Amino acid sequence: MIIDINCDLGEHYGIWKTGDDEAILPYISSANIACGFHAGDPKHIYQTIQACVKQHVLIGAHPSFPDKEGFGRRNMHCSAEEIFTMVLYQVAALKGMAEAAGGKLHHVKPHGALYNMAALDDSMAEAIVKAIRMISADLIVFGPPESALEKAALAAELSFWREGFMDRAYLPDGRLAPRTAANAIHKDISTVIGQALMMIQDKKVPAIDGTIIDMDVKTICLHGDHPGAAEMAAQLKAAFSEAGIQVGY
Amino acid sequence: MIIDINCDLGEHYGIWKTGDDEAILPYISSANIACGFHAGDPKHIYQTIQACVKQHVLIGAHPSFPDKEGFGRRNMHCSAEEIFTMVLYQVAALKGMAEAAGGKLHHVKPHGALYNMAALDDSMAEAIVKAIRMISADLIVFGPPESALEKAALAAELSFWREGFMDRAYLPDGRLAPRTAANAIHKDISTVIGQALMMIQDKKVPAIDGTIIDMDVKTICLHGDHPGAAEMAAQLKAAFSEAGIQVGY
Amino acid sequence: MIIDINCDLGEHYGIWKTGDDEAILPYISSANIACGFHAGDPKHIYQTIQACVKQHVLIGAHPSFPDKEGFGRRNMHCSAEEIFTMVLYQVAALKGMAEAAGGKLHHVKPHGALYNMAALDDSMAEAIVKAIRMISADLIVFGPPESALEKAALAAELSFWREGFMDRAYLPDGRLAPRTAANAIHKDISTVIGQALMMIQDKKVPAIDGTIIDMDVKTICLHGDHPGAAEMAAQLKAAFSEAGIQVGY
Amino acid sequence: MIIDINCDLGEHYGIWKTGDDEAILPYISSANIACGFHAGDPKHIYQTIQACVKQHVLIGAHPSFPDKEGFGRRNMHCSAEEIFTMVLYQVAALKGMAEAAGGKLHHVKPHGALYNMAALDDSMAEAIVKAIRMISADLIVFGPPESALEKAALAAELSFWREGFMDRAYLPDGRLAPRTAANAIHKDISTVIGQALMMIQDKKVPAIDGTIIDMDVKTICLHGDHPGAAEMAAQLKAAFSEAGIQVGY
Repeated sequence: MIIDINCDLGEHYGIWKTGDDEAILPYISSANIACGFHAGDPKHIYQTIQACVKQHVLIGAHPSFPDKEGFGRRNMHCSAEEIFTMVLYQVAALKGMAEAAGGKLHHVKPHGALYNMAALDDSMAEAIVKAIRMISADLIVFGPPESALEKAALAAELSFWREGFMDRAYLPDGRLAPRTAANAIHKDISTVIGQALMMIQDKKVPAIDGTIIDMDVKTICLHGDHPGAAEMAAQLKAAFSEAGIQVGY
Repeated sequence: MIIDINCDLGEHYGIWKTGDDEAILPYISSANIACGFHAGDPKHIYQTIQACVKQHVLIGAHPSFPDKEGFGRRNMHCSAEEIFTMVLYQVAALKGMAEAAGGKLHHVKPHGALYNMAALDDSMAEAIVKAIRMISADLIVFGPPESALEKAALAAELSFWREGFMDRAYLPDGRLAPRTAANAIHKDISTVIGQALMMIQDKKVPAIDGTIIDMDVKTICLHGDHPGAAEMAAQLKAAFSEAGIQVGY
Repeated sequence: MIIDINCDLGEHYGIWKTGDDEAILPYISSANIACGFHAGDPKHIYQTIQACVKQHVLIGAHPSFPDKEGFGRRNMHCSAEEIFTMVLYQVAALKGMAEAAGGKLHHVKPHGALYNMAALDDSMAEAIVKAIRMISADLIVFGPPESALEKAALAAELSFWREGFMDRAYLPDGRLAPRTAANAIHKDISTVIGQALMMIQDKKVPAIDGTIIDMDVKTICLHGDHPGAAEMAAQLKAAFSEAGIQVGY
Repeated sequence: MIIDINCDLGEHYGIWKTGDDEAILPYISSANIACGFHAGDPKHIYQTIQACVKQHVLIGAHPSFPDKEGFGRRNMHCSAEEIFTMVLYQVAALKGMAEAAGGKLHHVKPHGALYNMAALDDSMAEAIVKAIRMISADLIVFGPPESALEKAALAAELSFWREGFMDRAYLPDGRLAPRTAANAIHKDISTVIGQALMMIQDKKVPAIDGTIIDMDVKTICLHGDHPGAAEMAAQLKAAFSEAGIQVGY
C-alpha cells in the first residue's frame, strides 16, 4: 500500500513564521506551497521550493484569495475572471520559481476559502481549472472527492487526486465539517492516526455522527502549522511502517 | 533606420486606471508590463498580455519594489536575497501568463526606484540579473547605458538593450536628471520628438546644461501615462515616417 | 425644502485618482471619506479632509472591507469581531485626522459591500454600530431606509440619516437593484435629476418595474467618480435652484 | 530609583503571532502598540489596547513605514508630506481605539527604520513630530538621546523621553550599533541585565569598543519578540528588586 502525504508549506510572511517546514519535510511526499496571496513572500517561497527539491518532495502551488490578514480563510465573492486570473498569476509564479530552482511544478491545490468554495461552485471550479490547464496540461489538481473541482478538472482532462483529511471530521455526506463546528478538528493523535489508517486500508472514515462512510483518496493532508506537528508526523510514520504503508505516489 | 519603442503598460489596479494602453499599443514595439508589485492586478496583467499578443508587441516584465502606494518610485533598502527573489517571483508570473496567452516573455525592465538604484548599485544589479538569468538565458535586459545593470547583464551573458528617454532631461554624465529637478521632464512635444530623432539619427542628446552628449540606444521609452500620450505617439509616428525611421527591432 | 447631498471622496490611492473631488465639493453638503481600506492613502485622506474643512462640507468616515483590489465591492465573510475592530480602526483614524485639520467627524457611512451586507445582516450591522458608538455617541450613521443598519443604529441611540440614490434603480421592495442588473444605473442626467426631485418633493421613487414606491430620505448620494460628475452636479444645482430646494442639513 | 520599561506589543498579523504579549505585560510600564503598517491588524491592536488598559500599562502608538513584508525595518525614501500623513493616520487610529477601550494614548515611538532614520534626519523628525503635535500637545515622544527626533520634539514643545536599550550594543558616539553588525545584539541575559542596571544606576553603558559612555535615559526598551523574553523579564524584575529599582514613571 502506498499513500501520498501532502502538507501546506511556505506559509511564512516576512518575520512571521507558521509551521516548522524543515521538521515536516522528511515525512511528506508532496508540498502545497503558498503563492504570496494568503501567505508566502518571495524569499520564503523560494527557500521552500529549494528545500522540496533537495528532499525530493513533489512541488505544488497553493493559490488563494488575496487576503493575508484573513489567511485566505474568508470567503470572498469574486468574478470568474478575477478567479481565473488570480490563479493563473499564482500558479505561473510558482511554476517559474520551481523551474528556476531545478524543480518542476507537479500539482495545484487551492487554499482555504478558495478550496471550500470551489468544492461546491461549478463556475468557480471551472475558472480555477481553466487557469491550471492553461499553465500546463500535466498539472494535477488536488481537491475533495466528488466535488465541483473534481468535475471541472476531469472535464478539462486534467488528472485529479482526491484528498482526504486525517485530522478533520467529516459530515455524513462526505464533506468536511466546518472548522467552527464542535469536534471539527481532531486533537488526539491516536484518533488522527486511526482515521488515516482507516482511509488507506479500508477506504472509509467515520463521520461526525458515527456512521462509516466511503472515502477513497489518493493523497492525505498533514497539517504542519501546529506545535506538535513534527511529533505527530513521526508517530504517523511509525504507524505506517508497522502497517506496511509507504508514503509516496 | 529602425528603433524599438517601449512603453510601460498594465499599470492599472482594481478600478484605478493609468494610461490608455489600447491607444498606445499601435505605436510601440515592446511593452513593459506591471507585475503586481507597484501596479497591475492579475486581471489587468492578463488583459494587457492578451492585447500585446494580438498586436504583435514584444512582452516584457516590469518588476518593482513591493510598494503600490508609492508606485514603486520610493527607494527601499532590501537585502540582495529579497531583491533576487522578488524579481524571480514577478518575472516567473509574467512568463507563465504570457505563455498561457500564447505569447512569449521577451525582456525584463526593472521599474522606477528599482531601475534607478540598479543602475548604480552592483550588488542590486547582480541580484536582479541572477533572477532573470535563472528564469531564462533568452531574456533581454532593458536598462540605462553604461549602468551597473548593463555590466551585470553582460557578465551573466544576457543580452542588454540600452534604453533612452525622449521626454527626460539628461545630466552631462549621461544619467537622467532626477524627476524632481527643474526641467527634468520635457512637456513640449516638439522637444520630445526632437530628442528622439537626435538619439536615433545622431546617437546623441542635449544634456540639461546645453552640452551635447553621446547616447547610443537600442530602445526608447514612450511614457503612456499622461493625457496627451496617444496624440504625442501619433505625432512621433508622423515624424519618424518623414525621417524614414521604422519602429521595430 | 432642504436636502443633504453626500458624495464619496478621497478615493485615490498613490498615483491613481478617481473622481475630481475639487470640482464636486461646491455642490455637496457632506462627504464620505475613504479610510485607507478600499481606497485612500494617508496623504489623500488628509488633503480631502482639509478641502472639506475649507468648504464647510460635513466630514464623514467611509469604512470598508480591507480590499483595495476589489475597491471594497466584493463581499467578504468576516467575524463580528473583525467587522467591529476594522470599523473602529478606520473611524478612529478619520476622527483624529479631521480634528487635526481643525474639523470634526460628523458621520459614518459604510462603503460598498460592507454597506450592502450591513443593510441585510443584523449581526454585521450591530458590529459596525458598536464601533461607531464607542468612538462617539454624536456620530450619525448614514444608510438605507429600513435596513438592519438603521435598526442597529436606533437601538444604540445613534442618529440615522436615511440615504437615497438618484442614479440607481430601486427594486419594488425599496432596496437597490444590484449594480450588475440591467438598467441598475441611470446614465441619463434628466432621469437622475428627475429621481432626485421626486425623492425630495414627493418622498417617492419609481421602482425598476415601473411602480412608484415610498422613499423618504434625509440625504442623497451623488456619485463623483465618473467623467461627467461635475457637469451633472451643476445641472442638479440649477434644477434644485428652480425648484426652491436648498442643499444642506 | 524608578525606570520606565517599554515594550513593542501587538505585532501580530492575522494568524501570525510574534511575542507573548500576555506574558510580558506584568513586567513593563509602557507599551508601543503596532498601528497596522508594519504589523498589527485591527483585532490584535484592539485586544492589545484592552490588555494594557486592564494591566495599567501606558499606551503608546508605534507608527511605521507601510511595509509588513519587511516588518518596517527597511529604509524607505518618502516625502515629508508622506511621512507626516502616515504618522498622523496611525497615531489617530491608535488614539481613537485607546479611548474607545477606556484608555488614553500616552506616547508615540516610531518603529524600526522610521525610528532609525528619524534619529538622524531633521526633516523626517520634524514631519513625525508635526503629526504627533497636531494629534495632541500632551503626547510624549520616545526616541534616542540627542537625536534629530529629540530636537524636533523639544522645538515643538512636546515632552521627550530618552530611550535606552539593554540588549543592543552602542557605538562610542552613543548611537546603536546596526542590527547587522557582529555582537550588535546581546544574547546573554546577565549582559542584558548588567547593561540595564548600569544605565539606571550610573547613567552609562559600555560601548562596543569597550569604552564607557554616558547614557541618561527615562525609559528602557524590553524586546518581547524572542522565545526567552518572559523568562528574561522575570530575571530582570528580580535584579531590579534586589537593586531597589522600581518599574514605572
